[in-house]
Amino acid sequence: MSGESLGDALKRVAGEVEQAIDVLLPVPEGPEARLFEAMRYATLGGGKRLRGFLVMVTAGLFGVDHACAARVAASVEMLHAYSLVHDDLPAMDDDDLRRGKPSTHKAFDEATAILAGDALQTRAFEILAEPDTHSNPEARAELVLALAHASGARGMCGGQMIDMMTEGQTLTAEQVGRLQALKTGRLIQYSVEAGAILGRAPLHQRHLLAAYGRDIGAAFQIADDILDVEGSAAEIGKTAGKDAEQGKATMVAVLGLDRARAQAEHLAAQAAGHLDSFGEAAEHLRALAAFMVTRRN
Amino acid sequence: MSGESLGDALKRVAGEVEQAIDVLLPVPEGPEARLFEAMRYATLGGGKRLRGFLVMVTAGLFGVDHACAARVAASVEMLHAYSLVHDDLPAMDDDDLRRGKPSTHKAFDEATAILAGDALQTRAFEILAEPDTHSNPEARAELVLALAHASGARGMCGGQMIDMMTEGQTLTAEQVGRLQALKTGRLIQYSVEAGAILGRAPLHQRHLLAAYGRDIGAAFQIADDILDVEGSAAEIGKTAGKDAEQGKATMVAVLGLDRARAQAEHLAAQAAGHLDSFGEAAEHLRALAAFMVTRRN
Repeated sequence: MSGESLGDALKRVAGEVEQAIDVLLPVPEGPEARLFEAMRYATLGGGKRLRGFLVMVTAGLFGVDHACAARVAASVEMLHAYSLVHDDLPAMDDDDLRRGKPSTHKAFDEATAILAGDALQTRAFEILAEPDTHSNPEARAELVLALAHASGARGMCGGQMIDMMTEGQTLTAEQVGRLQALKTGRLIQYSVEAGAILGRAPLHQRHLLAAYGRDIGAAFQIADDILDVEGSAAEIGKTAGKDAEQGKATMVAVLGLDRARAQAEHLAAQAAGHLDSFGEAAEHLRALAAFMVTRRN
Repeated sequence: MSGESLGDALKRVAGEVEQAIDVLLPVPEGPEARLFEAMRYATLGGGKRLRGFLVMVTAGLFGVDHACAARVAASVEMLHAYSLVHDDLPAMDDDDLRRGKPSTHKAFDEATAILAGDALQTRAFEILAEPDTHSNPEARAELVLALAHASGARGMCGGQMIDMMTEGQTLTAEQVGRLQALKTGRLIQYSVEAGAILGRAPLHQRHLLAAYGRDIGAAFQIADDILDVEGSAAEIGKTAGKDAEQGKATMVAVLGLDRARAQAEHLAAQAAGHLDSFGEAAEHLRALAAFMVTRRN
């Protein structure tokens, strides 16, 4: 892996994650085939696979079997995809466009999108609990528990609720930070921790990686807010300017563009700092932290 | 427990499951409180707790700690509740009434109901993976895996998809049987198996209990179809006659009322037959099989 650029590594790993998802979501015969097609539509053929990349690269630090790490990467991407499918529903953010394609409820229908999201969440947990993911059941149970913490009512779902409840309100930077930590940060942090769980990393390394994950998660979300203001729909693959239009609380709205960008840069540098003891092996994770604030989509 | 009537046992255990759910869903401070209130609304204060009862009674066969079994019972009731919340949504069955109360999207709003269902599913898996549920991580991973099998795209969600895809079509009894096995049977069967997993039951006993669970699940669903035709809204706590109105495939529609009732009775007797080797200890499970076809709600 040494010498490979971050861009090449992202592309390579995205392909591996894509293939793992493809294998883990085979379409059966019968009228239920449509459900699997919607699940595949929502997860395959797009996205940066940032979360999957974090699983794969962190697992690589501990020499975890590639196929096992790819299963966990596929699982977290399915969990992420379920949240996007449900967020895009008319009753939620009502977004017709996702990754440059019609969102799942547009390509299929609302009922199928609700079900596909539900079943993607289930499949994410199922994959983690399957013996193929790790020979040690303790590791499997830990992966399930950590994903549930990150994505449930005290994580992602709770963040989504706060987002809805505070729409149109003026929040403090601290409130926006908490909202974003729950809504997107926890799942990014989980992706890093999952690699450490797979690798049975000692506790102090798990803590360092969790801190790294927390910081890049926060930087990622601020960068996303900046892109929503500055980017075009073609670049970011979804409707631009939606946040302001919907009165969503973002760091840009609270701090202004310049201070938000400075905050993202500070977080990215702080993230990289947690990796000092990992040396050369963590070069892609360090490069990724910097990339968080320079990315254009 | 010996000598206690099935009715008394059902009432007692429903109270225990209710209390476990209450404890497992505390409401936090902050704007996300509304999400937890919706989750509690959807799960507390109603229902027969059939699935929870099956977990508790089966776990009792193996002397499983009461508090551990109650956690798993609460988990399966949360999973069941999530499916009801999403099924009731306007884009799905569009049902305004559930257990005699406004359905969750009516009492709150659609977005909150979608999120509450999502977070209830997550919480169900989270509880199973928590060390308090079983000291053996292998048992926890098995519980997660079995629940995912029962409730995902190859179980409950797949059944719901088939139900949607075949609406208005004429199905064979075999097709209706498969639909119902997926849509409701698997989760009932899981409830029985979960008790055996908690009790680290030997494989032959797990198979017997799984067969019992499969048969009472099928009997339960046919009884439900019969009640939909014969019952009043007051008795069954939801809108009566919905199945025929929506052109849903039911055993009553395929076989007629008399043959459907005979089929349910046959399945209930067959279910009880699987329990012979468990002797006196399985009296409540036997009584429950008979109750499946005599219940009025």
